[in-house]
Amino acid sequence: MFGLGLGPGDPELVTFKAVRLLRAAPVVAYPAPDEGDSFARSIAAQWLDPKQREIAIRFPMRPGEPPAAVYDEAAARLAAELDQGHDVAFLCQGDPLFYGSFAGVLTRLAPRYPVTVVPGVSSLTACAAAAAIPLVQREASLTVIPATLDEAELLRRLAGTEPAVAIKLGRHFGKLRRVLSLSGRLDGALYVERASLPNQRIAPLADIDPASVPYFATALVPAR
Amino acid sequence: MFGLGLGPGDPELVTFKAVRLLRAAPVVAYPAPDEGDSFARSIAAQWLDPKQREIAIRFPMRPGEPPAAVYDEAAARLAAELDQGHDVAFLCQGDPLFYGSFAGVLTRLAPRYPVTVVPGVSSLTACAAAAAIPLVQREASLTVIPATLDEAELLRRLAGTEPAVAIKLGRHFGKLRRVLSLSGRLDGALYVERASLPNQRIAPLADIDPASVPYFATALVPAR
Repeated sequence: MFGLGLGPGDPELVTFKAVRLLRAAPVVAYPAPDEGDSFARSIAAQWLDPKQREIAIRFPMRPGEPPAAVYDEAAARLAAELDQGHDVAFLCQGDPLFYGSFAGVLTRLAPRYPVTVVPGVSSLTACAAAAAIPLVQREASLTVIPATLDEAELLRRLAGTEPAVAIKLGRHFGKLRRVLSLSGRLDGALYVERASLPNQRIAPLADIDPASVPYFATALVPAR
Repeated sequence: MFGLGLGPGDPELVTFKAVRLLRAAPVVAYPAPDEGDSFARSIAAQWLDPKQREIAIRFPMRPGEPPAAVYDEAAARLAAELDQGHDVAFLCQGDPLFYGSFAGVLTRLAPRYPVTVVPGVSSLTACAAAAAIPLVQREASLTVIPATLDEAELLRRLAGTEPAVAIKLGRHFGKLRRVLSLSGRLDGALYVERASLPNQRIAPLADIDPASVPYFATALVPAR
């Protein structure tokens, strides 16, 4: 069993190792929304072979955590393949273990099957690269914060002067913007959406229309 | 000017984009210790061509920050190449903007020259992949902390229950171990050294001999 990180979206940001293992696997699995295409699969599309069997794991894309039952069922389907001796490559956008759905699969399968994880370029560093600004330097700490946290918790975590990155913005954007303003960190905060893709968008966070913000958008908050 | 992330060490964890841009550059620069070989160059060795001119930027590998003068001189050397129309690829281990020396070059050159940054697999996700454990999930925050901070500051930052990663261990390992023990987080903490390289070492942090710890070693502290 392999968990393959495919990077933030640009197929050129995939590693040689991920492609080698992806091509060698008889079964390829990936997370997908209730309806429509898998982003992870779209990154890997050029390397997939019609002879590979594909398993789409449908994760509800509603706010909050997919229910444990989705992971249980996914793990059972993959275990059935592994029990038949079919190796499985699980495709992951970004990095498999950085806020990815692969963690739920890994924790269920690792006790019974060998699992190899191939790290990928995470959205964290892809956003900083897209903006061409340092993410974190020297003796600074870096905090990564889901914008889904409540306002008090966001305020607490953004109160300092250290660099921070807020992820999963979507409908939480307005709250995050308010918190950044209250903590005096709105100036300098950058908004990054779809890093590395042709329709990438980078702008001062203060200029963004909250109604236009998708879930997979990121805020870079530099050190003060 | 390009800043190219080459990943944690295994040349198979380099991206297609980094290799394409590396091969196209007439001048290749990289950080190197006072004496001896550049780790970034060693990752890229198989793609270097004798026709490319190489510039080693010697950073003192003593504790603390390289003096600004090293960055000033590096930026001046690279600017001289760029002024002659020679494009420069600056090779970076890991990701260029995640605690890398490239940030000091970028901030000096970006006001005058176009700079493209290609993100790489960072040591952060490479260590989690090597250990095959989730780095951070769901609504958790992640904190990355240099072990070079003083004991009180480390204690403060590790007091919570959220996942954390301590970097730059080296001679600070004993202090970090003490802090993890005091905050009840030594159990479960993992030590990762040289992730993705043949001599990679992964072990419970509690089992590590402090005398054996290099600067580029990492501690993964899972959520409690």
